[in-house]
Order: sequence, then C-alpha cells, then structure tokens
Amino acid sequence: MTGIVVQNIDRAAADVIDGLAACGVATVHEAQGRTGLLASYMRPIYTGARIAGSAVTISAPPGDNWMVHVAIEQLKPTDILVIAPTSPCDDGYFGDLLATSAQARGCRGLIINAGIRDVRDLTEMQFPVWAKAVFAQGTIKASLGSVNVPVNCAGAYIEAGDIIVADDDGVCVVKRADAETIMKLAQARESNEGDKRARLASGELGLDMYKMREKLAEMGLKYI
Amino acid sequence: MTGIVVQNIDRAAADVIDGLAACGVATVHEAQGRTGLLASYMRPIYTGARIAGSAVTISAPPGDNWMVHVAIEQLKPTDILVIAPTSPCDDGYFGDLLATSAQARGCRGLIINAGIRDVRDLTEMQFPVWAKAVFAQGTIKASLGSVNVPVNCAGAYIEAGDIIVADDDGVCVVKRADAETIMKLAQARESNEGDKRARLASGELGLDMYKMREKLAEMGLKYI
Amino acid sequence: MTGIVVQNIDRAAADVIDGLAACGVATVHEAQGRTGLLASYMRPIYTGARIAGSAVTISAPPGDNWMVHVAIEQLKPTDILVIAPTSPCDDGYFGDLLATSAQARGCRGLIINAGIRDVRDLTEMQFPVWAKAVFAQGTIKASLGSVNVPVNCAGAYIEAGDIIVADDDGVCVVKRADAETIMKLAQARESNEGDKRARLASGELGLDMYKMREKLAEMGLKYI
Amino acid sequence: MTGIVVQNIDRAAADVIDGLAACGVATVHEAQGRTGLLASYMRPIYTGARIAGSAVTISAPPGDNWMVHVAIEQLKPTDILVIAPTSPCDDGYFGDLLATSAQARGCRGLIINAGIRDVRDLTEMQFPVWAKAVFAQGTIKASLGSVNVPVNCAGAYIEAGDIIVADDDGVCVVKRADAETIMKLAQARESNEGDKRARLASGELGLDMYKMREKLAEMGLKYI
Amino acid sequence: MTGIVVQNIDRAAADVIDGLAACGVATVHEAQGRTGLLASYMRPIYTGARIAGSAVTISAPPGDNWMVHVAIEQLKPTDILVIAPTSPCDDGYFGDLLATSAQARGCRGLIINAGIRDVRDLTEMQFPVWAKAVFAQGTIKASLGSVNVPVNCAGAYIEAGDIIVADDDGVCVVKRADAETIMKLAQARESNEGDKRARLASGELGLDMYKMREKLAEMGLKYI
Amino acid sequence: MTGIVVQNIDRAAADVIDGLAACGVATVHEAQGRTGLLASYMRPIYTGARIAGSAVTISAPPGDNWMVHVAIEQLKPTDILVIAPTSPCDDGYFGDLLATSAQARGCRGLIINAGIRDVRDLTEMQFPVWAKAVFAQGTIKASLGSVNVPVNCAGAYIEAGDIIVADDDGVCVVKRADAETIMKLAQARESNEGDKRARLASGELGLDMYKMREKLAEMGLKYI
Repeated sequence: MTGIVVQNIDRAAADVIDGLAACGVATVHEAQGRTGLLASYMRPIYTGARIAGSAVTISAPPGDNWMVHVAIEQLKPTDILVIAPTSPCDDGYFGDLLATSAQARGCRGLIINAGIRDVRDLTEMQFPVWAKAVFAQGTIKASLGSVNVPVNCAGAYIEAGDIIVADDDGVCVVKRADAETIMKLAQARESNEGDKRARLASGELGLDMYKMREKLAEMGLKYI
Repeated sequence: MTGIVVQNIDRAAADVIDGLAACGVATVHEAQGRTGLLASYMRPIYTGARIAGSAVTISAPPGDNWMVHVAIEQLKPTDILVIAPTSPCDDGYFGDLLATSAQARGCRGLIINAGIRDVRDLTEMQFPVWAKAVFAQGTIKASLGSVNVPVNCAGAYIEAGDIIVADDDGVCVVKRADAETIMKLAQARESNEGDKRARLASGELGLDMYKMREKLAEMGLKYI
Repeated sequence: MTGIVVQNIDRAAADVIDGLAACGVATVHEAQGRTGLLASYMRPIYTGARIAGSAVTISAPPGDNWMVHVAIEQLKPTDILVIAPTSPCDDGYFGDLLATSAQARGCRGLIINAGIRDVRDLTEMQFPVWAKAVFAQGTIKASLGSVNVPVNCAGAYIEAGDIIVADDDGVCVVKRADAETIMKLAQARESNEGDKRARLASGELGLDMYKMREKLAEMGLKYI
Repeated sequence: MTGIVVQNIDRAAADVIDGLAACGVATVHEAQGRTGLLASYMRPIYTGARIAGSAVTISAPPGDNWMVHVAIEQLKPTDILVIAPTSPCDDGYFGDLLATSAQARGCRGLIINAGIRDVRDLTEMQFPVWAKAVFAQGTIKASLGSVNVPVNCAGAYIEAGDIIVADDDGVCVVKRADAETIMKLAQARESNEGDKRARLASGELGLDMYKMREKLAEMGLKYI
Repeated sequence: MTGIVVQNIDRAAADVIDGLAACGVATVHEAQGRTGLLASYMRPIYTGARIAGSAVTISAPPGDNWMVHVAIEQLKPTDILVIAPTSPCDDGYFGDLLATSAQARGCRGLIINAGIRDVRDLTEMQFPVWAKAVFAQGTIKASLGSVNVPVNCAGAYIEAGDIIVADDDGVCVVKRADAETIMKLAQARESNEGDKRARLASGELGLDMYKMREKLAEMGLKYI
Repeated sequence: MTGIVVQNIDRAAADVIDGLAACGVATVHEAQGRTGLLASYMRPIYTGARIAGSAVTISAPPGDNWMVHVAIEQLKPTDILVIAPTSPCDDGYFGDLLATSAQARGCRGLIINAGIRDVRDLTEMQFPVWAKAVFAQGTIKASLGSVNVPVNCAGAYIEAGDIIVADDDGVCVVKRADAETIMKLAQARESNEGDKRARLASGELGLDMYKMREKLAEMGLKYI
C-alpha cells in the first residue's frame, strides 16, 4: 500500500485558489462551517505570508525524506507541498536545497507535520513553511513512501488536489469539490465584515449591532 | 454563580498604571516579591509592545465567546481584557472585529488563556495580545459566563480592576490595592539598575560589585 | 561533587570557531554525522543571529543563578555561556544586567535550558539567547553549583571549551578536539552546495541530479 | 454539513472482528503495513482489556456531548463508540450513566479523543475506555454534531463501520473492506511468532535466526 | 508577604467532609456548577482512593520543601496537605518520611502541583497522593514560604480550610462556606442517578428518558 | 563515528549492583548528591519492579531497531538494556520477541527513551520496562547505530557498564567507578531512615527532630 506516485491529480481553478488565499485562514475556516483546520502547533517560520495552492501530498516514513524528491517532479505552478510522516517525527525533512528545487517549479510553500531547517535561507528566499518544529536533525533516504495519496496531517485529512490555505493564523484545507462554493461564501463574509468593522470602529457595540441584549436577558444574565 | 456582570469596578489611578507599564514585567514582578506572573506559555502575538491597564475579566465557557461582547461594553479607556475559559481550550475567541470594537473604547490589549486569530490584522492595528495559542478555530455563542468576577488565568488569580502589566517577557498581575506601592518599589529598582548597568558595562564584575566572593568561599566554592 | 570552578579550559582556535559559525547549525550538524544537536525547544529570542564560541558551562541548581556571576569572571572574548539546571526549571536565570556584564567581557551569547527575561533589552543590545522559555520568574542566590564541568543541556553532553554553534535552526555542539576537522567537512559541504543550488534553481530535478530513479524503481516505486 | 445521523452502516463479520481482537493492536498494525494507529496519548483507563468492534463515530462540538445520546441509539452489539471533538478538548464527555446505556446495547467500549470521567465506576463495570485525559470537567448539550460520518480521531481517519482494535498498546483502526485480509495476515504473523518465540527463549540469537550478520558486516558494522 | 504561618483556620464539619468524599469528584464538581476542578494532569499515584479533607495549604519556593515540615505541625485529623510551588517545578518535595509524619497526625493525603517520590512506600502505606509528576529529584531547605495562605494550585484558587475532594477522576475544591450546600446538592444528584442508571441499564434510551428528540429535530438533526 | 560494537565492557560487582537495587532510586539519587536521574517522563509499564543492572547501551537511529539484535548478543546476566534514539522518537522499538531473547540471556529489563509495545505480554513475562511512551508503531532495520558507546538518554549521560537503578520512582544512573561508594552511602541513608521513620510515626515532628525551629525564626518565619 506504499510506494505509489499518483501522477495526474485534479486541481481547482487558479482564480478559485487565489480567491481563497485572499480571504485567509480564519475566514475560509468559518465559511466552511468551522472545519478543515490543522492543529495549532503548525506555525509559520516567518510572519506575513498568506498563500493558497493545490496540495501535492507526501506520506513519508519517519526520518526519511526520499519521497520529497519524487514529489517535486509532480509539482505544478501554485502547488503546495504537504508532508505527513507516518509516525510522529520532528526531524528536519526539508531545507534550502529542496526549497530551491520546489520554488523552481513554481511551488508556493510547504506544510509539514515535522521539522524544518535552514529557516534563515528559506526566509530570505521568501519560501513560506508551516511546520511543527524547527529542527536541524537530518533525515535518511532508505525507504519508500507515497506521493499524492490521502494523508492525515496535523489532525486534518488531506487528499491530493485539495486546496491548502495558510497564513499567520495557521493552515486550513478545503476539499477540491467545494472550493468554488467555499470561496464565494468566504468572499461574502469578507464584504459583510467591512460594514461591521466600520460600525464597531465608530463605537457601536456588538450587543446592539447583533441585537444580543434580549436573548442574554432571557437566559438570565444579571448586571450588578 | 454564573451569568453575572459586575458593572462598577474600582481602578487604580492612571499615573500608577502608566508607571507600572514603564517598568515592565520583570521589574514589577521582582518589586512585588516575585509573585503575580502568568504561565510562560502566554506569548505576545508580536514583539515590542509594553502595556499596563485595569483588568476587565471574562469567565467564559470553553469554546463560547458570547461574554466578550458583554465585556466590551464595560471597558473604559486604558482597560485590558482578560479572558479565562472555565476549562482548557485553545479555540480562537477573539479576532479583528472584536479588537476593532475594543479599541474603539480605548482598550489597550488582551490577555487570553486560549486561542487568538486574525493575528495579521491585529498586528497591523497594533492591538497587542498575549495568548496561549494562535488558532483560527471559531467559537459559538450559546452559554452565559460572567464579567468582572475573579478568574484563574494561566496560573494567576485576577480580580477585576487589578493591574495587568504585559510585555515581551510575559504577563504579570498587580493587586489594585498594592499598585501604588509596587510602582514605587519598581521605580526604585529601575533607578538603582542604571548605576549597576554602567558599572557592569565598564567591566566591573558582579562578584565584586555585590561582594559575593567571601560568602561563596565560606560555602565551599573551590577554584581549580 | 558540586561547588567547583574550573579556571583553565582549552579553547579551539579563533579561526576554527569563526569558520564553524559561518557554516551554520544545519551544515555543521550534517558534517559531524548528524550528532550534537540540542533539543528543538531551544529557540532564539530574536531571529537572524548566527554565532559560534567556546562553551563556558554552568551546572546550576534549579531556580538559583548565583553561579552565573562566578562564570562571567571566567569568560574570554568569543565565549558562549551554557546554563544547565540540575533539574527541569523554566525560571528566568538571566536578564539585561547579566548580559551587560557578559557582553563587557566579550561573550557572544547564551544557551540556557531554562528561562530568559528582559528579552526586549537583550534584543536591543543584540545579545543573542537560545532558551527553553521566556519567563520573568526570578531566581535566588542560595546554593552552589559548578562552572566549567561537563553538563547535560537540552539532550546534549557539553564540556567546557566545546564549540557551540547557534542560529535560527537551533543549537549544535562540536567537540573541541574535532573542531578543525568538522569545520573543513562543513566548508566542503558548503562549497558543494553552491553548485547543486544553481542546478536545482535552473529546474534540474534532484531525482536526476542524484541519480535516484533507478534505485527507486528497484525498490518498487510505482507511478500510476 | 453537520447535524447528520447516518443510520445504516455496514459492519464486518463478527468472526473477523473477533479474530482481529485476538491478535491485538501491535500485530494488526504490523499486518496492515504499519498503518492505522491512533496517537500514543490514547491510553486505557485500566489495563488488561483487549477488544475489537465496529466504529460508531461521533463528530462532536468541543465540550458538548449531546450527540453521544443520539449515537447510543445507533449501537448494535459488539460496536465501539468513537468520539472525536471538532477542536481540541479535554472535557469529560462520558461517564458511568452513558456507559450503562451503551453497555445495555452491547457496546464493547469507547475511544475518545478527549476526557473521560467516573473511571472508578467504569472500571468496576468493566467498560473499557481509551482516552486522551481523565478529567471530570462536564459538558453541555447545546449544539448539533453528527453520527457515523468520517472523523479524524487522534491522528487517524475513521469511517463508521471500520474495525477498531484496542488493548494495552493503544488503538488501531482497520478499514472495513480490508478487515478479513488483515485478520488473516495478522493470524499468520501470530502463528509464525510462536516458533520464533520458542527459539529465542532457548537462547538462539535474532542475529542468527534472521541471518543478519552478513548484511551488518557489509554495511560496515565493526566489533571492537 | 511570605514567611507566614496561619495557625487557626476554620474547617467544615466532619460529616460534611465525609459526605463530599462519598459523592466523589465528578458529582461534587457538577453539583457546584462545574467549577473547582484542578488540572487534569493531577493524577493519583495509585487507583481506588477517594478522600475529602480540609486543605492545609503550602506556598513553597520552587525546589524547596522546608515549609512542609512547618505545615505538618498545623495538621489536624482528616486534613489534606496542598502544596503549590510559586513557579513551575517537578521536583519531588515529598516522600515516605514526610508521609509517615503527616499520617501520624491524621492527614488523609496530599495534593501537590509538583513531583512526588517513594511512590512504592506511599502505596504500601495507603497514603494517597495526587501529583503532577513522579520524580525522585530532591529538594533543599533554604528559603521560607508560607502555610495556610491562599494558593493557586494546578489552576484552582484554594484557601486554607477549603474542602478538597479527590479520587480517580482527579481533584476538586469546594469553598468552606459552600460545603454543606454543595454536599446536599451532590447527594441529591447521587440519589437521582440511581433511578436513571436502572432505566438506562434496562435499555431505555437517554433520547427518550431526557425527552431530547423534539429539541434535536427542531435544531435540524437529520437521520439518513 | 557510528556502526561500532564495543564488546568488552567493565561491570560493577554483582553484590554492589544488588545493593543499589535494594536501596531504590530515590535513596541512590540522594546518596550521590542528587545527580543521575533520567527525566520524569520515563515511566514503568507496570508497578512494583525494582531492579539494578549494568547498562548495555544502544545508540539507535530514529525508528530503526536493528541494533537491538546486535546488543542482545552482548548481554550478560543482570544487565539492563538502554536504548537512546539519536533524534526524538516514540516508535515501539521493542516487544515481546525481543524481550524473550533478552530474558533468555539474563537481562533484567529495559530503559528506552522511545516507545514500547506488547506491554501486556511484557507484564506477564515480568520483564520490566521504563519508557517514554507506549506505542505500537513499528520500526525498520535499515541503518547502523552503535552498541556500548556513551549515550544521552532522557537527560542523563550513560556509559556502558554504568549501573542503572529503576523502580516506581523512575530511573537513576550511577557511574561504575562510584558504584561501591554510592551503595554504601545509600545503605547508610537507609539505616538512618529507619530510626527517623519510627520517631515520626510516633508523632514527633520534623521541626523538632531536625531542630529547625530556631533557624526558621531567625529567617523571619511568623506565626499568626
């Protein structure tokens, strides 16, 4: 069941991917009913990046990064690499050489439920990574894994071609089939938020804007 | 015992609050006998902020941020929101809309023993937050909590109107009744440190400056 | 077995130390056969620093920083302080006054398997620290420890005079006797990497550059 | 996408389920190519239980156990409840009353990526539970979740009707479609192990029994 | 503010304390509105103990157990020792000699937000302990702390004389003034549960017994 | 520097090893000046075992247990296996077959800074193990490590032939050269404790027995 490379994967339309990126993780996550978040320990190596792309997934043995080379060949522009070890591992699977290679193929970034290294170089290259750990510990190339098979990554189930959205708030996955719908829902939330933000900034209270006072009183809230 | 909003809380004088902010967490914590620190997992979402303010406390059910709206109405300029879930929770209770509303009322920042989201927006707004996690996971509005009741937050007991001091070193609470005394003790430490810093910078050793050599020898320290 | 200060320690040559610093943690760690890394929880208080120096070690009782003053007297220019508590402790052993004193003696930075405080000041001073925690909790001066004895620090065994290399990827220790050899191996890796980076940047695949395809096929990798 | 109860789920044959139980977690996990394990933090509340059953899954809001009542109605004899909160939560979703109800319907045990309580009663009832935490913290009944939808539970993707195997080593999931095959592979491993165990017990070395010496020498192992 | 021993503390009536013990942690915690639990990392060193008693509190410096000797003199029969270090610490403050001394004064057990050692002896003595860690690391006797002052212990605020309830589910604190009321509420829950348990054991569903079906349908639960 | 098997190691005398076992971890740790403890996360898989033996050390690649077979050949009666992965790993390196083989050679138990599996079988065999995790995740046999080289294991530096003492309190290492001295110091502590225990059991207070009252008063302890 391992040692497989799926070569042809379906991807969402480029404008949908970019539309999701523009909305960001928190909004996309809300738009799809508060699902799809990866664990909060997945942190960016530098702040300010906000990306989306199609997942090229890697199911890798612990401490073995051989499949990353295999996966890079499968990358198309705007893709995002997703590395999920088959047992918990903090080793540094990925550094500046692999990033150079991935970036040369148009890869937008990396999501890895393990360690990352060469973070200074990666920051200079502006190759964003969300990782469980920064750890220079090296890996070997001894065993097969698989590419573009479904993976469990930091608590989320990700299939190749699913859309990954990542920013300072973390990482969220959107099923490919739902991508356009979710993008529209997310954009609706965004436009809706502009008005709310202005009213709140002017001093209007959420209690009034959302008409919460009556409901709270009914439930027994007491002011003393 | 829940569902209560205490409306009138006593606050320390503005100059005391600002005096404490100027001293910073490490000095204030020392000045009050090494008490009052919150757990070290409470980290700022961006570096460089140093604030103090009166605590407006929120005891919130896990995963439910309804009381935040109620608390915002209770905010006065220079206050700091303190959110403590009643059971451990990393969900993102607070984002840019709530921050906009809080900031409109003069709130200086947020201390939350749970998750925060929209950190890119919050950073742009310069609304500082010290949190246990960055996590986009949303919350619901289904159950009552309380506002301005005493809370246990990240290992510290905080009452409404206590002074919160927060900077890159973490978060410290000062009892309202002790605030002026502690400020003076902290300021005394500060002025005292200037002289020490100059002497140490010039190469004088702490061993000599603090006259430690004799005591160390007495206790049996051996140079080999 | 405690209460000892070893005064004369051997150090590696300055150009070897600086040569190791230039290579950085990930490369040095690879060059010495993937050994010597400290735990990944040892994080820098600010990004961008890359240092190397001779270890001046401190075996300290938990929550007691008295020996730091003793150790500072033993510092020579380019040394790095290494503080290892004898039982797990997150307290803030070290702040801006001690950093001022250490910096006055030419110390390049601090590695501490415990807490650090005054991080804003330390950042301004450009005194780099790799620590387990940022925590303002103070320490006492009541018990003896030892200086320049071997310590276990965050999973690594460090002897006084060993070379510490630290950057955004973490911290690595090189045995003094091996320092020159490791530096040369690391430099060889560096020069070798330049060529590889260029080829990968131009779009050549690792699969081809490292001639992996045949081996992978032999092991049974299947493209579907 | 929430608020759904799938009523008719396919289950594996009873003898296959019991065959898997007899093999235990470590053997089943090996038999299916080292996949399917839940995280090692999932620990039994008492030792000695070894069970297998069909998963009746619950996707529950954090801190809300309402759906457990809904799921119990869906239980058939030999089923196992699997509770996965949609965001991390240690609250005690389940105690002796729910266990009484589940046991009355033939349920063999509970797998919960959250907290459990009443562990003394559950132990007396011999109702085995594998949980992330023991925590008396109560839950509410305010929001909908879903029953028998796919869930991510402690790092594993579980669909209703998949076979759960659990013992002192932890928890493993087997896809329903593969259950019979995996059972046979696991049983083959078991019978194979008996002979090996006897030879090893008699003092024969694995080095000889598995003929490893030549391969190790080839790779450069040196005896000194 | 440290170095204080409060000698006369008020205690709840013996029958109230024993009444709370009989109800156990989960029920008492429910009875007081789901408040008062200590963190779930506070685990018993052996299973099966269920105790309650009046808290004799110790605020101790990290790694210093001197105040335990002071506190033992303050113990009266049925009291429970509560040790809270002033900064996080896993050291073993307490072992079989101290337990012998405490037990000689009628102490029922120990709650410690730190480490415990001699667990084999303590188990033989049937002196129950709930601790954050089992760790043989010793402590010193160098600094003062306080006895019977309010402490923050594992997330709970505990005053001397408050009632501690502890069993396999963890630890809960009841304010002394509320003890009798809470006992009665807890006993009411207990007697109420007997009937429910019988009905559930006979196969009646919680959905029917609690009349949940209509409410769930209203909220949109769909059976498919 | 890897791929080495040291065949002839020095061991302490059998009566010294057994003398240390009889004293137990807490006493031995005290006797050697509170050094030598492994991290508190090293927990026994069952309670009640108390062993000592000479360390046969294994430095193993993460997720690769090949060297365990090599090490078993090096075992002599009363030895204890010590497995330290070179980067953090929770995989289950060791199960009932390896335990059968080790036990056939007289091995007394296993200390492993990683995972263990088949705990039910190991418990039945009464083969005690202190491990970081119970985890069925399997390992591979692809890379060399070393046997009987110094290792860092759970925070302790262990050389082959050092004496390991392990019981319910955790694990402690004693340097071979110090073993007899430490045993005598530990035995002296033991005999000394018998008298103290009797006095404390009769109600005498530690405050009086250790004559602490005057010192405490001098330091300013106040009874109120």
